[in-house]
Amino acid sequence: MSAKIRIAVLGASGYTGADLVRLAITHPMVEIAALAANQKAGQTMADIWPSFAAYRDLPRLIRADAIDWRGIDAVFGCLPHAASAELLSTLNARIRIIDLSADFRLNDPEIYGEWYGVTHPAPGLLAEAVYGLTEMARPRLPAARLVACPGCYPTAALLALLPVAEAGLIGPANITINALSGVSGAGRGLKETSLFAEVSEAVAPYAVGRHRHMPEIEQELGKGFGAPVTISFTPHLLPMNRGELETITVELAEGRTVGDLRQCYAARYAGEPFVHLLPEGVAPATRMVRGSNHMVLNVFADRVPGRAIIIAAIDNLVKGSSGQAIQNMNLMFGLPETMGLEAAPLFP
Amino acid sequence: MSAKIRIAVLGASGYTGADLVRLAITHPMVEIAALAANQKAGQTMADIWPSFAAYRDLPRLIRADAIDWRGIDAVFGCLPHAASAELLSTLNARIRIIDLSADFRLNDPEIYGEWYGVTHPAPGLLAEAVYGLTEMARPRLPAARLVACPGCYPTAALLALLPVAEAGLIGPANITINALSGVSGAGRGLKETSLFAEVSEAVAPYAVGRHRHMPEIEQELGKGFGAPVTISFTPHLLPMNRGELETITVELAEGRTVGDLRQCYAARYAGEPFVHLLPEGVAPATRMVRGSNHMVLNVFADRVPGRAIIIAAIDNLVKGSSGQAIQNMNLMFGLPETMGLEAAPLFP
Amino acid sequence: MSAKIRIAVLGASGYTGADLVRLAITHPMVEIAALAANQKAGQTMADIWPSFAAYRDLPRLIRADAIDWRGIDAVFGCLPHAASAELLSTLNARIRIIDLSADFRLNDPEIYGEWYGVTHPAPGLLAEAVYGLTEMARPRLPAARLVACPGCYPTAALLALLPVAEAGLIGPANITINALSGVSGAGRGLKETSLFAEVSEAVAPYAVGRHRHMPEIEQELGKGFGAPVTISFTPHLLPMNRGELETITVELAEGRTVGDLRQCYAARYAGEPFVHLLPEGVAPATRMVRGSNHMVLNVFADRVPGRAIIIAAIDNLVKGSSGQAIQNMNLMFGLPETMGLEAAPLFP
Amino acid sequence: MSAKIRIAVLGASGYTGADLVRLAITHPMVEIAALAANQKAGQTMADIWPSFAAYRDLPRLIRADAIDWRGIDAVFGCLPHAASAELLSTLNARIRIIDLSADFRLNDPEIYGEWYGVTHPAPGLLAEAVYGLTEMARPRLPAARLVACPGCYPTAALLALLPVAEAGLIGPANITINALSGVSGAGRGLKETSLFAEVSEAVAPYAVGRHRHMPEIEQELGKGFGAPVTISFTPHLLPMNRGELETITVELAEGRTVGDLRQCYAARYAGEPFVHLLPEGVAPATRMVRGSNHMVLNVFADRVPGRAIIIAAIDNLVKGSSGQAIQNMNLMFGLPETMGLEAAPLFP
Repeated sequence: MSAKIRIAVLGASGYTGADLVRLAITHPMVEIAALAANQKAGQTMADIWPSFAAYRDLPRLIRADAIDWRGIDAVFGCLPHAASAELLSTLNARIRIIDLSADFRLNDPEIYGEWYGVTHPAPGLLAEAVYGLTEMARPRLPAARLVACPGCYPTAALLALLPVAEAGLIGPANITINALSGVSGAGRGLKETSLFAEVSEAVAPYAVGRHRHMPEIEQELGKGFGAPVTISFTPHLLPMNRGELETITVELAEGRTVGDLRQCYAARYAGEPFVHLLPEGVAPATRMVRGSNHMVLNVFADRVPGRAIIIAAIDNLVKGSSGQAIQNMNLMFGLPETMGLEAAPLFP
Repeated sequence: MSAKIRIAVLGASGYTGADLVRLAITHPMVEIAALAANQKAGQTMADIWPSFAAYRDLPRLIRADAIDWRGIDAVFGCLPHAASAELLSTLNARIRIIDLSADFRLNDPEIYGEWYGVTHPAPGLLAEAVYGLTEMARPRLPAARLVACPGCYPTAALLALLPVAEAGLIGPANITINALSGVSGAGRGLKETSLFAEVSEAVAPYAVGRHRHMPEIEQELGKGFGAPVTISFTPHLLPMNRGELETITVELAEGRTVGDLRQCYAARYAGEPFVHLLPEGVAPATRMVRGSNHMVLNVFADRVPGRAIIIAAIDNLVKGSSGQAIQNMNLMFGLPETMGLEAAPLFP
Repeated sequence: MSAKIRIAVLGASGYTGADLVRLAITHPMVEIAALAANQKAGQTMADIWPSFAAYRDLPRLIRADAIDWRGIDAVFGCLPHAASAELLSTLNARIRIIDLSADFRLNDPEIYGEWYGVTHPAPGLLAEAVYGLTEMARPRLPAARLVACPGCYPTAALLALLPVAEAGLIGPANITINALSGVSGAGRGLKETSLFAEVSEAVAPYAVGRHRHMPEIEQELGKGFGAPVTISFTPHLLPMNRGELETITVELAEGRTVGDLRQCYAARYAGEPFVHLLPEGVAPATRMVRGSNHMVLNVFADRVPGRAIIIAAIDNLVKGSSGQAIQNMNLMFGLPETMGLEAAPLFP
Repeated sequence: MSAKIRIAVLGASGYTGADLVRLAITHPMVEIAALAANQKAGQTMADIWPSFAAYRDLPRLIRADAIDWRGIDAVFGCLPHAASAELLSTLNARIRIIDLSADFRLNDPEIYGEWYGVTHPAPGLLAEAVYGLTEMARPRLPAARLVACPGCYPTAALLALLPVAEAGLIGPANITINALSGVSGAGRGLKETSLFAEVSEAVAPYAVGRHRHMPEIEQELGKGFGAPVTISFTPHLLPMNRGELETITVELAEGRTVGDLRQCYAARYAGEPFVHLLPEGVAPATRMVRGSNHMVLNVFADRVPGRAIIIAAIDNLVKGSSGQAIQNMNLMFGLPETMGLEAAPLFP
């Protein structure tokens, strides 16, 4: 086999960056060449992360502008939106970019500006960006230079909806997504609403009617339907670290049944290593996927005639973020898709 | 002041029964005369409940058939469905019944049989049973002999939906309720799915498309609309002890807005001691009501035009169960409605 | 009945202050006259606390220096150490002070300076300060002008150790206290180590060998022994909101047994409304006291001959802080000791 | 490389067995040949474990007496004490046994009988059993036929105490171990005290003064000291799934310091892949090791002169159980010690 892929990680001080490093440590074909975190430059990963206490050989954190790009094959962008796009736009074209921020997910910089409140920092890169929902983007990944990894909510929503939308089994009206997420989704920033004593023993919705993952879901789902679609989406923060579950009610296309949806999923995901249709009647649960790159999926008849309830669960930090990024990297570099992602879920 | 109300509690070994006893202990006009729990007869509350370790003067648990009914003014039924209806049907008419089971909630014994899988154990009592959603049932409570307290999910759903349904502000189609509940809602029974290590750090839906609270919501909501209604309802079990949050998407009636709904709630709940419309934009959260009899409520514009998102939060064991039962008792016996229910939420 | 006690609360934006307000709301003889929180001045309690969402009539937060002291009968200091002592030292002698900070707990300002790193801000008040461990300080409270409420850890430790130390049943050597606390003990300050995702599913000790509650325990315990004592004390932060449990190993005095300790506790705490010796063999647990002012206590034989294991549990925010403060206020103002503190523990 | 090791797992329906299967799935030199669980025979792992929902190719569960031993190289015993010893004693001597129960840990069947309440089921095997605390047992493992894996509490306690006991740096008197464990340590059995709503937001000690891991710690520690030792040990159950932290107070040998202990650990564990002395002042935390085979360790000065506080953290199911079992298997079969155990801790 060829030499290892030398990676740089921008934003190694956030939960997403840390989970990427966690996975990279045991990936047999990855060498962690540079870890950047401007605010924490000079410290070690063990200094800022309890979980790397036993990993004192990792590269010390540096500022992003101190990275020596000459030896880097791929860069993972794990920064908030608009924070890395400018830097990424100046990189040598040889370096492949796997971005986990929102910057290259939306095709239209106008819509980006509208939802993120800033002028797009690198609109010139949008044309070549591949939307990295792995199971859908697979053919385009080997040649991709820049991959925009989907948001965690869109990952579960689109893997649940796209097959049945594309097959004409559901209609675009009245798609209602209720999403439940662990608190790691809110990041490591210091906010009162992320404190243990506020979150524990409690649940609350947030960003009702205005979450930034909505235009992303609508953009990709619209492609699946071949027509624009408007969705209802309400996310909730739960007292758990990881995990994401989406309960989606849809209208069946005329004459279609829940059985048709099952068949569609069964066919579409038969060979997939990470997407699993559960046996009839088994409800997806986040404990089925904790710490792993798997997604579990099922569909149920709604009590309202002509509707169905589709439920999907992922680990928001793995399949919803760092795991899918590694999965994309594997395909971009011609490696087996599952390499470094084989760990079974951690339970209990 | 008159003499205290002497109460008996059937099912003091379950979470609902225990929470009722917790509230009754400090209610200035209640005397706990008898505590029944057939499987635990002979033990003390302190033996079977950690939280009563400091309350060694409570009556010892006895079998329900050992209760001396002569001194009892009111009985609280905290047993599973079909377990107490027969006994209750034989009581002297002087004794007032506040039942927290499902037995007297559904008007039609056929529907009861269909959803609960048993022949109704006391159909003769159904005609006089008052559906005890306190804020709606208030005028009928002083004269009521038998009050059927609503299920926890229906309590939040109906307080959220009835005012706007009755006012013609929303339509009966496409009402989708996503409900999130703490694990105490599953009871103290020994089930693998209730073990800490299975529930913690996890979320899952259950009873998808077939939860027994659906016919109850539909029955009462149908009265509000003046026509039958079919709802979509998906409950989820969350890693928390108490608390219940419902996120409900509805269709606005022609020409109606979210502002109209706000006005309706503001007017309807202006004087209510326990139901609170939050300021515009503030999302309800279970931490706002933990351990209290309060419900918080708000309404938001949906991204899908012509729809709204209504969100309500209660403590499933208090307003959703024992607290509402006490609230009903207060009204049945002519006491101030808030007596014994004044405790502010416990946070953090 | 006489007029209500009009109270001011300094530091209503912290967990301790908020829990004091929670209790004060339902105290029949308390009127909340002023709530101060400099950083949050101008906001309402409902703005900054989810649990007061339904309590919109509370006084708006003001700066401490804006309090109109003329109508105030008692002030509760719920600020960090050294933040309020200066202000308190200027108050009219008519106003009684119940301080929950560390400022007036240590008799010696030198020791205070050593442990808290600042010169004592009001050494002139130390002489009149009563150490408000209620069960021990009871006779001195009616006449006290300034009461220094104990820290949460000292409260449990001293109620567990003082009776048997004073009775000569245990020796002063080798007293080892392992303390476990919910995260609310760390306050509402924004720290990475207080974030949900860091604390959940995890436990860690902190301030090993140097926690500031040590000199306080040693000071009071030394009085009990009649000689200086040095203790070992290791606190741990647990993934729970409230609750504190201390497991204390001690050496029995020559010829003494665990039975002697039981007898001593039984006699000492026989009439106490809030301190409860559990039946033989029953282990104290924080779930026995959650949200209440109770403490539960028990003693066990150690496997090492001649030693015993004493275990005590409290709610750190109630008996360990705000509840004990109210208990002290009741005695200072001649009210029944349990007034406003009758709520039974919240479980589950 | 040679053929894979074909393993059988007895007790695949418990948390320990499941975690062993989790690790075995990705171990490159292990083939899972048989999974036994008498009560669940006929079901799949996916039927009984949410975390294996995506692993439908695992062998179906069978009864232990239905295992075809001809193709088995090693058997992992993950059953409660006394449940498998008899069966294991009849196996062909070619099959190597890694037992995770308590059956072969205590050298003396009398002591076993005393603590476990049963006559030892296979005393004939005790002589050849190697106590599998890997870091101490390493030289004896390649030739071992039967390895008794230590209990979770002894694993952390002994790795923390043995080096400094053997070096004469601490004395055998007054060793006090306070142990904190996640609930998975209580197993998957249906007990009220393991229910989510009882455990969450709560902590309690259990088996005070009589936990079965005490004689095991004393046996091995006595070897380290070269003389019998009696310890104080109090375990507590915490509201978390995994993780174990032990806070141990010890007396320093005459003239010895905490610095001497640090040096000893640094030397002893310098090359260890899984045991890590933290930098001075850094407190061990279970979040440092979650889901991994690592142990973190540190030592602090006690406030009581002449004493030290040693703190160690492991994942009770991995290093405390299944991970150490795999580590032992690797050494027994001549594989690299870390094979299959490389996963970094899962955080958050």
